[in-house]
Amino acid sequence: RKIVLLPGDGIGPEVMGVARALIETLSDIAGARLELLEYPIGGAAVDAAGEPLPEATLRAALAADAVLLGAVGGPKWDDLPPERRPEAGLLALRKALDAYANLRPVRTIPALLDRSPLRDARPIDLLIVRELTGGLYFGTPRGITETGREREAVDTLRYTEGEIERIVRLAFRLAERRSGRLTSVDKANVLASSRLWRDVVERVRKDHPTVEVRHVLVDAMAMALVDRPWAFDVVVTENLFGDILSDLGGALVGSLGLLPSASLSEAGPHLYEPVHGSAPDIAGRDVANPTGMILSTAMMFELSLSLPDVARAIVAAVDDVYADGFRTADLTPADAPAGVRTVGTEAFGAAVIERAA
Amino acid sequence: RKIVLLPGDGIGPEVMGVARALIETLSDIAGARLELLEYPIGGAAVDAAGEPLPEATLRAALAADAVLLGAVGGPKWDDLPPERRPEAGLLALRKALDAYANLRPVRTIPALLDRSPLRDARPIDLLIVRELTGGLYFGTPRGITETGREREAVDTLRYTEGEIERIVRLAFRLAERRSGRLTSVDKANVLASSRLWRDVVERVRKDHPTVEVRHVLVDAMAMALVDRPWAFDVVVTENLFGDILSDLGGALVGSLGLLPSASLSEAGPHLYEPVHGSAPDIAGRDVANPTGMILSTAMMFELSLSLPDVARAIVAAVDDVYADGFRTADLTPADAPAGVRTVGTEAFGAAVIERAA
Ligand SMILES: CC(C)[C@H](C(=O)O)[C@@H](O)C(=O)O
Ligand SMILES: CC(C)[C@H](C(=O)O)[C@@H](O)C(=O)O
Repeated sequence: RKIVLLPGDGIGPEVMGVARALIETLSDIAGARLELLEYPIGGAAVDAAGEPLPEATLRAALAADAVLLGAVGGPKWDDLPPERRPEAGLLALRKALDAYANLRPVRTIPALLDRSPLRDARPIDLLIVRELTGGLYFGTPRGITETGREREAVDTLRYTEGEIERIVRLAFRLAERRSGRLTSVDKANVLASSRLWRDVVERVRKDHPTVEVRHVLVDAMAMALVDRPWAFDVVVTENLFGDILSDLGGALVGSLGLLPSASLSEAGPHLYEPVHGSAPDIAGRDVANPTGMILSTAMMFELSLSLPDVARAIVAAVDDVYADGFRTADLTPADAPAGVRTVGTEAFGAAVIERAA
Repeated sequence: RKIVLLPGDGIGPEVMGVARALIETLSDIAGARLELLEYPIGGAAVDAAGEPLPEATLRAALAADAVLLGAVGGPKWDDLPPERRPEAGLLALRKALDAYANLRPVRTIPALLDRSPLRDARPIDLLIVRELTGGLYFGTPRGITETGREREAVDTLRYTEGEIERIVRLAFRLAERRSGRLTSVDKANVLASSRLWRDVVERVRKDHPTVEVRHVLVDAMAMALVDRPWAFDVVVTENLFGDILSDLGGALVGSLGLLPSASLSEAGPHLYEPVHGSAPDIAGRDVANPTGMILSTAMMFELSLSLPDVARAIVAAVDDVYADGFRTADLTPADAPAGVRTVGTEAFGAAVIERAA
């Protein structure tokens, strides 16, 4: 089977290097024959091919069994026109793959409980289900226009009932498999799209009578996540709200570098990417935390390759590596306890691979 | 001078009762002749007059020297059509007053530092400057339509350059008066409106060379506020981002019940309201925290009545009341230290008034 690797920009290539080594080792052991194909995306693709999602990259991704992405973006490309910016390549890829369901687990790694910024640090284990191919990210009209004397900018938050329904149905199924609790986040006291969202949740709910549903406004949810993140399980929301709340989740477990994601499509290959960005400030220095990428790879083994045992082995290896005191720089406090040692991206990855194999 | 009081729904009337007593006592002492006029808004206005912003309320507000609002909304009115919901009355009032600049100070009350949910609890003192009359809250087209087989919902995020410029200019002036540091929050890697926003910030910046400016993406900002809220001073952003980030700010200082706000207009009266909502679950039980309302009243004394000494006396009185151990239920932990006593809304208000007078 074909896995397409899209390292991208900044720390993308470094964390992807770890993912590649991990996949090669574990697929050998599992007897899975995987072909790893690498293509440029984002700023790297702009530099190489003049556009952030070259035809060859898109074609390869569409033909793959799974797509792994590092990260895109960086100051070097910030002044390009919007449609040629690295992020445009990522968004076009998500849309082309129809990767509508972005699963973002926010889980405390046991050995990192003391890295929680919260005084009342209890283990967090929630799953943000973010709609990924609709809303403000894609709605038209969008753009900046000259209206006589001054400029005006427009973005459009548009959702069809079908777009909402498929992500909501998935969230209900996931809630059934987990704790049976579902939180739907919207801004129904202001937005029409949120009212339709809430309506669809209420309708779909009838097919899942055992799931306990709560509607929470996005502003209240930002607060609730700080107050009692351990109280939530599955959280379903639209694209931009999911973007904001999942970064908040990263802060709550100690580092955005820890969070993986899987973006599921109905027919095509799924897309796996860490939640963190390209972190240009620390790129190329072997200090990036590869955990988000490693755990994204675990999600791929489970959801695209039907090798849940491999996935479990990777997650357990990550937990063990942290328990053994390995930390990348983002997680090394000034007052690090004895037994904690700071390692680079590669060494961290090697420690995980050794334990997972 | 005329002050219009709009108690609204839920706990609104209770916290407004405290504000009224506070204003009556302090204006007497300051020799200011204030006329306090009360009008219905929100659900209370729907019940009394069939609409959430009755003509008489709007007329009185427009003719006032300042407008104080409690809170609106509640489950009783959730099933009304959108334009008759309590929130529609509040939004229409903000728009009619042209109250475009929503100042939301997020400040740790010294005696409440131990109520911070953060392990590394340092005093927070930042000011969110939220654009209040544009963006997704007001853009058209908006609504739910039937498009053949299924429904579709649209909201519009629209900003003119002028709308952005006036809020950004104000934020720069406020930053100059405070620490000289300004954080502008947007989602410029995705939204056209954010690109225009960033562009305007860069242009206005030239007129304020001493202000240190940083652009932060909204997802990164949610994380940064949890990681190091004390590192920020003035934070300027558009309507919905400001809504989400200020609730997050409430969680970080220990309770949303603590936060006040002032919404400034260019020509008309300013509008003052606590950041918290109507909290229908605790309404009518004399347990609501009136601090947000009290501090909003302080902002009114400073910004609408040019009585900064009265404002300072109120803020100092609030700090003292907390230092003396008074707490409403939202701030009383199970393991409350000796010297802390839980009081009701009225008693808390009376303690503040006594110390401010
Ligand atoms: C890079 C950016 C376009 C992207 C997003 O906003 O979706 C990122 O923040 C994410 O969360 O995956
Ligand atoms: C009640 C609601 C419409 C309002 C808003 O979203 O502006 C509230 O959340 C606020 O922050 O003032």
